[in-house]
Amino acid sequence: MATLKDIEVAAAINILTAFAFFVAFAILRLQPINDRVYFPKWYLKGLRSSPLNSGAFVGRVGFCCLLEDLLSRCRLKIFVPITFLAFAIMVPVNWTNVTLEHSNLTYSDIDKLSISNIPIGSHRFWTHLVMAYVFTFWTCYVLKKEYEIVASMRLHFLASEHRRPDQFTVIVRNVPPDPDESVDELVEHFFLVNHPEHYLTYQVVYNANRLSNLVKEKKKLQNWLDFYQLKYSRNQSMRPSSKTGFLGLCGERVDAIDFYTSKIENLSEEIASEREKIISSPKSIMPAAFVSFKTRWGAAVCAQTQQSRNPTIWLTEWAPEPRDVYWDNLANPYVSLTIRKLIVAVAFFFLTFFFMIPIAFVQSLANIEGIEKAVPFLKPIIETKVIKSFIQGFLPGIALKIFLIFLPAILMLMSKFEGFISISALERISATRYYIFQFINVFLGSIITGTAFQQLDNFIHQSANDIPKTIGVSIPMKATFFITYIMVDGWAGVAGEILRLKPLIIYHLKNFLLVKTEKDREEAMDPGTLGFNTGEPQIQLYFLLGLVYAVVTPILLPFIIVFFGLAYVVYRHQIINVYNQEYESAAAFWPDVHGRIIVALVVSQLLLMGLLSTKEAAQSTPLLLALPVLTIWFHIFCKGRYEPAFVRYPLQEAMMKDTLERAREPNLNMKGFLQNAYMHPVFKEGDDSESDVASGDGNQEPELVPTKRQSRRNTPLPSKHSGSVSSLPEVQEHAQLL
Amino acid sequence: MATLKDIEVAAAINILTAFAFFVAFAILRLQPINDRVYFPKWYLKGLRSSPLNSGAFVGRVGFCCLLEDLLSRCRLKIFVPITFLAFAIMVPVNWTNVTLEHSNLTYSDIDKLSISNIPIGSHRFWTHLVMAYVFTFWTCYVLKKEYEIVASMRLHFLASEHRRPDQFTVIVRNVPPDPDESVDELVEHFFLVNHPEHYLTYQVVYNANRLSNLVKEKKKLQNWLDFYQLKYSRNQSMRPSSKTGFLGLCGERVDAIDFYTSKIENLSEEIASEREKIISSPKSIMPAAFVSFKTRWGAAVCAQTQQSRNPTIWLTEWAPEPRDVYWDNLANPYVSLTIRKLIVAVAFFFLTFFFMIPIAFVQSLANIEGIEKAVPFLKPIIETKVIKSFIQGFLPGIALKIFLIFLPAILMLMSKFEGFISISALERISATRYYIFQFINVFLGSIITGTAFQQLDNFIHQSANDIPKTIGVSIPMKATFFITYIMVDGWAGVAGEILRLKPLIIYHLKNFLLVKTEKDREEAMDPGTLGFNTGEPQIQLYFLLGLVYAVVTPILLPFIIVFFGLAYVVYRHQIINVYNQEYESAAAFWPDVHGRIIVALVVSQLLLMGLLSTKEAAQSTPLLLALPVLTIWFHIFCKGRYEPAFVRYPLQEAMMKDTLERAREPNLNMKGFLQNAYMHPVFKEGDDSESDVASGDGNQEPELVPTKRQSRRNTPLPSKHSGSVSSLPEVQEHAQLL
Repeated sequence: MATLKDIEVAAAINILTAFAFFVAFAILRLQPINDRVYFPKWYLKGLRSSPLNSGAFVGRVGFCCLLEDLLSRCRLKIFVPITFLAFAIMVPVNWTNVTLEHSNLTYSDIDKLSISNIPIGSHRFWTHLVMAYVFTFWTCYVLKKEYEIVASMRLHFLASEHRRPDQFTVIVRNVPPDPDESVDELVEHFFLVNHPEHYLTYQVVYNANRLSNLVKEKKKLQNWLDFYQLKYSRNQSMRPSSKTGFLGLCGERVDAIDFYTSKIENLSEEIASEREKIISSPKSIMPAAFVSFKTRWGAAVCAQTQQSRNPTIWLTEWAPEPRDVYWDNLANPYVSLTIRKLIVAVAFFFLTFFFMIPIAFVQSLANIEGIEKAVPFLKPIIETKVIKSFIQGFLPGIALKIFLIFLPAILMLMSKFEGFISISALERISATRYYIFQFINVFLGSIITGTAFQQLDNFIHQSANDIPKTIGVSIPMKATFFITYIMVDGWAGVAGEILRLKPLIIYHLKNFLLVKTEKDREEAMDPGTLGFNTGEPQIQLYFLLGLVYAVVTPILLPFIIVFFGLAYVVYRHQIINVYNQEYESAAAFWPDVHGRIIVALVVSQLLLMGLLSTKEAAQSTPLLLALPVLTIWFHIFCKGRYEPAFVRYPLQEAMMKDTLERAREPNLNMKGFLQNAYMHPVFKEGDDSESDVASGDGNQEPELVPTKRQSRRNTPLPSKHSGSVSSLPEVQEHAQLL
Repeated sequence: MATLKDIEVAAAINILTAFAFFVAFAILRLQPINDRVYFPKWYLKGLRSSPLNSGAFVGRVGFCCLLEDLLSRCRLKIFVPITFLAFAIMVPVNWTNVTLEHSNLTYSDIDKLSISNIPIGSHRFWTHLVMAYVFTFWTCYVLKKEYEIVASMRLHFLASEHRRPDQFTVIVRNVPPDPDESVDELVEHFFLVNHPEHYLTYQVVYNANRLSNLVKEKKKLQNWLDFYQLKYSRNQSMRPSSKTGFLGLCGERVDAIDFYTSKIENLSEEIASEREKIISSPKSIMPAAFVSFKTRWGAAVCAQTQQSRNPTIWLTEWAPEPRDVYWDNLANPYVSLTIRKLIVAVAFFFLTFFFMIPIAFVQSLANIEGIEKAVPFLKPIIETKVIKSFIQGFLPGIALKIFLIFLPAILMLMSKFEGFISISALERISATRYYIFQFINVFLGSIITGTAFQQLDNFIHQSANDIPKTIGVSIPMKATFFITYIMVDGWAGVAGEILRLKPLIIYHLKNFLLVKTEKDREEAMDPGTLGFNTGEPQIQLYFLLGLVYAVVTPILLPFIIVFFGLAYVVYRHQIINVYNQEYESAAAFWPDVHGRIIVALVVSQLLLMGLLSTKEAAQSTPLLLALPVLTIWFHIFCKGRYEPAFVRYPLQEAMMKDTLERAREPNLNMKGFLQNAYMHPVFKEGDDSESDVASGDGNQEPELVPTKRQSRRNTPLPSKHSGSVSSLPEVQEHAQLL
């Protein structure tokens, strides 16, 4: 068992590590060559064009940033008072006992500060009970306040926003097949009939997956071409050559620049013909469409009502922002969706509870003997002592580590398979699953050692009464483990975040190998996104730890506060200077966050109940029982009171904005504004790549409003899933002039 | 243990009882004097005016009746094939074993037909497993079919309906207080602004609870007056007299007719002034209103969207039918509603699990000694041997019996307290609670003997794995009990239903004491309603029993089929001849019914799993585990596919009806049609009572469209909660002439 001394040493080491990361960051960020890694957002916003010219960053930081700020503050607001109170009251109550000293158990100083030090049946447990009430009420109070603020901020944000296509647009899916009419005619007729006063226009959705693959392929070839051209320009004496076969390792040797130039030309032609094919063939039209309305009111009505008798066709919902659309999922029929849901639910269950089985299998293969058998010629090297011990120490962990690194991606794939149509929804649902996985495998898995499946088996064979007991009893004993975990995973992880080691390396590699022009450099710079689907569940896990240990072992709380403080500073810096949000979520994830905090509260209450019932403080059980009931009721109340602000759009609000707009710009050309807002990004691609031979057929989009961009420098980088849509402010400006 | 012989005897007795009831019914219904008890609906529909003139009943029986029909058939459709299959396969499989004969256990012939007769670890359990799959798939298949039919019937019904005010009207609650405007101005302005093209008119809701009490009081006095007038007319020699004091037992002796006449006059004046006060005083206007729209489309939009930023004010939902409105609950603010929900949830929990405590307490009081102590002067009578043994045998059960009789009323009160605004919603929620109560206290309570609380305590201390085992193991042993229960509670209950003993007695009492005119006789005839909140949960309980025992003890199935058959015949008769639906639910309760059948299926699967796991047929557990997962998935699928037809109103549908109507009747006066549709029934009361002095101030409703009723005979009886609204067809006819 760790003593206070051990913890101090561990803390010192981890503080030093974190400090080292920060120092490295401070040094690296000052090198002008790293400027695009640590301040990409400044470039994106056009505030900086070269490392020398460093102007002050005064732009609007965005709603998302404000929100992250608020969230971090909310966490601190909950935990700082709880920590003070716990130290002022719980620590003395726990410390001034002699139970552990008189017992024969080995114990540490940490345990003396925890609930374990209180004798069985003591009246002091009333303090813990009262504190559980106080902490719950304080948390709920802050949560309610925050929900109120976030909801009103969201509404304010939505109200003060510029005109955006998604405010007027609804996505309709599962358009029924019709023998007489094509999808586009059907859509037009249906909405002309059922929303006669509000319907404006529509855009069909093309199945452009093949085209999008071709474009990706071309980009890859372009990279190779750039690489060879750069090589040639540096060493003019010899034209670079390459082999045509697999990976450039075999086949005929040809002139690389000519080879790739001709290949790209071929591909460009193919792209052009594929594009033509998609637009002309009715088969490539998917049974889905973006339908736009004249007013926000009309769109709000259509998005929030059922259109047809059969609730599985003509499904309408708010269109996501154009850059937020996940295009591949737009054409799933209803039955397929419900079956996919079932499959994903079952798969997630097995992933969570049985993920150790394949990993254990890999581990059993990946031992020294296994490797020696598979690749016998490596045997002499492996048998070297140093390498052997390294492999033996390293291999068993590596499969698990790799799995954990890929887990968010796996969860994301599952969500994509399930058929959500916006990136934000994909991230939200992945975050929820990641949290569940962490809760079961990290939280429960650390408390009751054993795999998740063993736990499940235990739980099934235990009574509902015993489960909180089993877990509750182990909780005080695991405090030191979690303190170490917070320091290693939390502190060091957050400090590592600011270093951006992976983007740093990739950027410099690209910069050396591929970058020819300013524009290439811009593309090499990858700001990335906040990664809501991994960062948030991790923070929520710490939240859970904090609530569970607040009453039991308050010494854990300061470590969590330090983590929250660090996370606050680091993420704030990253959001301002680095990350480029792909979409504006307008706090849509808040109900999820709120829900998870409530779950954490209820879990902490149940575990405390289990723990106290073993301490023969059973008279307190009925009082503790009321706590989860009240907490859940509080959740239901909040859900009814505030959640609608996140899922619905009040008509009053819509009407107000419509009226204002009509008064301000009576001659607005809505149709022009909305015509091509929801075009598959691959059709817009040609707009951005100057060397694109096929860009000439951009005139198949005659109504596209030309932007007023003055320099390519200021062009925002196209985000992963959409073309030049992020240049919408300009389009808007132009539209306003019409 | 009951043998087959015992069951045969019991069945014979119960069949005879049921037969006796039917014979009594056949005799009684032929007496012209009972005509109004057994055929009240014919009178209501105006098809009969006296017992002699018995015309053929050919009218439209109503959607509700069709539905009940469908429901009964659905039950039979599920169970008849299951029974045949079970008898063809399960009975031979169970019977041809000798486990019980070779064991030392006492057993009956019933047990030889059940799963108990199969040796532990036998391969024959695969039959049960396969049959569980077959039964589940068959049930789901029929359910899906039925859901489809019911949903399309509902939509067809809604589409083919006559124009009704509730199609155009939305109820808005929680109108926020405003310092400058009154509620009615506020409502008008809000909807004029936010639904400018569709808003038509509104009706405020008055707080008329006091007025409605006064009217009730007057009605009671009127009954007394009628009684004395009748007495006087029969015996002209002496004017009847009564005393003014408590219950007519003390106080001054006065002339009864004069006394009641003057009292009624006073009350009439009071009613008139109260009515005046309500209409003139702004304080009696509640923050709720019925808002009507020009089109169904407009109403559908308003009912299904959120109006205001703050989701707790301006709450809109479909208005119930005027006769379905529960007026007392229209003014509850949002916070109060959530608190009420919490209170009712907790109260229902205690009611379900702890109802035995007060009853046991009453039982302990209500023994011979207790009574002798409370009323010592009765001691000599009680000590008589016959009476004493009667009390001792009877008293302990009476408290429980009374509680069970009043249980539906108690549940109804709870729902009323919770704040639902329509009678149909009240009945739906009461039905759900009654089912839960029966499930826990009848089903589980009979299987694991003991009070619900003891069960709860057991379950908490048992593992999730053991609960289905404990229950599953007891199931085959309780088959005979449930067979008897089905016969006594089910067969005799249904046969008793057709006798209508209580209405029969009450009608004849009233007829003798109060009835002067034809109209009085009409009022004395109380057709009642179907009692969805008690009948349906009972049938569902039998459904559950059928599904649970289908695999375990198939001998139970024929008894259930007989019950369903009887219920089918009896309820069909009652709906055609007796019951007067207070509102047209249009099958709104179907999703509830469906959900309960799914619950029954899952319960039966879990219990079978528990049972088989004790039979060492554990290799079948994973296969059984898939069954509830698939069943729940099926439920989710159905919920998504069909439930929206029951909770939403598709815009396409609304638009279609609107367009048709506009084409057919371009000059329709909508405003006139809707003006007074949602008037508190107490304001319309004056319309019906001819002797009402205050009926003169009916001209406060100047826009009321006069009906074209030709004779009072044909006037439908005002249903409990609404005035003459049921005369809407006439109003419509008139409106069409305008």
